[in-house]
Amino acid sequence: MNKETLLQVHERVKPYIHRTPVLTSELINDMVQAQVYFKCENFQKMGAFKMRGAANAILSLSNEKRSKGVVTHSSGNFAQALSLAAKKMGVKAYIVMPKNAPQVKKEAVKTYEGEIIECDSNPIAREEMAANVQKETGATFIHPSNDDNVIYGQGTAAMELLEDYPELDYIFSPVGGGGLIAGTALAAAFFSSHCKVIGGEPKNADDAYRSLQSGKIEFNEQVNTIADGLRTFLGDRNFPIIKKYVERIIRVEEEEIIEAMKLIWERMKIVIEPSSAVPFAALLKNKEDYKNKKIGIIVSGGNVDVGNLPF
Amino acid sequence: MNKETLLQVHERVKPYIHRTPVLTSELINDMVQAQVYFKCENFQKMGAFKMRGAANAILSLSNEKRSKGVVTHSSGNFAQALSLAAKKMGVKAYIVMPKNAPQVKKEAVKTYEGEIIECDSNPIAREEMAANVQKETGATFIHPSNDDNVIYGQGTAAMELLEDYPELDYIFSPVGGGGLIAGTALAAAFFSSHCKVIGGEPKNADDAYRSLQSGKIEFNEQVNTIADGLRTFLGDRNFPIIKKYVERIIRVEEEEIIEAMKLIWERMKIVIEPSSAVPFAALLKNKEDYKNKKIGIIVSGGNVDVGNLPF
Repeated sequence: MNKETLLQVHERVKPYIHRTPVLTSELINDMVQAQVYFKCENFQKMGAFKMRGAANAILSLSNEKRSKGVVTHSSGNFAQALSLAAKKMGVKAYIVMPKNAPQVKKEAVKTYEGEIIECDSNPIAREEMAANVQKETGATFIHPSNDDNVIYGQGTAAMELLEDYPELDYIFSPVGGGGLIAGTALAAAFFSSHCKVIGGEPKNADDAYRSLQSGKIEFNEQVNTIADGLRTFLGDRNFPIIKKYVERIIRVEEEEIIEAMKLIWERMKIVIEPSSAVPFAALLKNKEDYKNKKIGIIVSGGNVDVGNLPF
Repeated sequence: MNKETLLQVHERVKPYIHRTPVLTSELINDMVQAQVYFKCENFQKMGAFKMRGAANAILSLSNEKRSKGVVTHSSGNFAQALSLAAKKMGVKAYIVMPKNAPQVKKEAVKTYEGEIIECDSNPIAREEMAANVQKETGATFIHPSNDDNVIYGQGTAAMELLEDYPELDYIFSPVGGGGLIAGTALAAAFFSSHCKVIGGEPKNADDAYRSLQSGKIEFNEQVNTIADGLRTFLGDRNFPIIKKYVERIIRVEEEEIIEAMKLIWERMKIVIEPSSAVPFAALLKNKEDYKNKKIGIIVSGGNVDVGNLPF
């Protein structure tokens, strides 16, 4: 993996993604005493950066493999991303989802013509069901975050951000399954001589923070956070990248996430999901450490029930 | 007034405004069977297009007049716009506002260092108080919508939109006091050979619709609409422009405004105020008439209490 690979990945996914805009706010700059550049992946197709990784993962498959389809387990944005990317490429997508997943998430997948296969609501049932689908259909399993091609695809967001603002000192990214921050870290390493990557993580799902401390992958006993996109765990493909390239992970409380989310809605006038507020909450909490710096923030997505907000 | 004047106005206000982005959504295009371009004035400084007109109105004054300040009556976006524009130009702004205006609106004006002068909550008290302030301070009165320089300033939004998308067939604008739609109509007349302007207006505050029917300015008996920015009345400066250049005004019901607002939040991932949803609601309601056309929509602002939504 090097700069050239990431450039090729970007060329390959370009027809399937938006080059999302970067927004700024004087009020927010004044508030944190730094220059902040928000990379708006909430404006990405299907509403989240996951479209990048999903598109790249399918494009990495041979035509023969594509003809048999792809399968993943997700009830979140990756389910929608894989369904939409597959639809656009004429590939069949099987989405393994817990029976009790919210109806609105099932409907979103159906809109993009993903085929939902229900399973019990636990990690073992989910993986068994995905294995079953693989066996029966010959579909290729694509993990939502622990997959090299997914990681590279997600890295194209930070790559675009650094193309637009090469002088960035830091990029803040949320940390969930680890795909986005690993891709972001690779992009920063390849496309900047000095830009460092910082993770924002909910205190209530701080496996990445603890993993960086201990040097091995730690797990969450529970994931009681409003940032539902960040309840997932690190994997063996993305953790080594995070360990090597990510400078720091900052943990934030639930109220800090909600406050940061509301601030972005009110000041930036954009709809973001709770997970997307986490890196900004991390910056707000530690703004003294980043005074007068140029800071990019990956706004990961905007898929939220606007009729049911935490404020 | 001609094309050159509007170009000069734009040059003059440029340092004080953002050139706002234009966003699109495939889902919305599919839904209305047309290509829709949203000019995002919710991303404008202080969160609404009003910044354009306010900046131009102050810039049109002599240095002597500027030294004595400006005064307006508004409890909405124009109060904030005039305060911020005046602050940036080192001019004093007096804002006449009803005693019972929401605290959040008063706070916003104070943030921008506008001086609030309270009055009773009726049009006569408001105008008397503004006249008082003029007499006592020598400040120049600037009407929020019925003022040529305000109208020209507001027209720069549509001018930018037509610079970016010269092939537009229609621009939809909300109709409140009439400043925005009059400016939009002038910009379309000067910068396009074929682009027509359509107004969206709440049925519950349909003075412009009825005025176009009767050919003279009609008034609203009541203004019971969620689109609080559109409760104001037409004036003698903007109505003749509207009469001459606006092709049609479409009225929408309250539920249609709320539905359109929610759709834009969910699909476009942007925070818009109810007034901004009105032109899109008008398009949705009459989409058969605009099939396969290229349509610009002025998204007028994003100042809304995100903790108190109608959905």
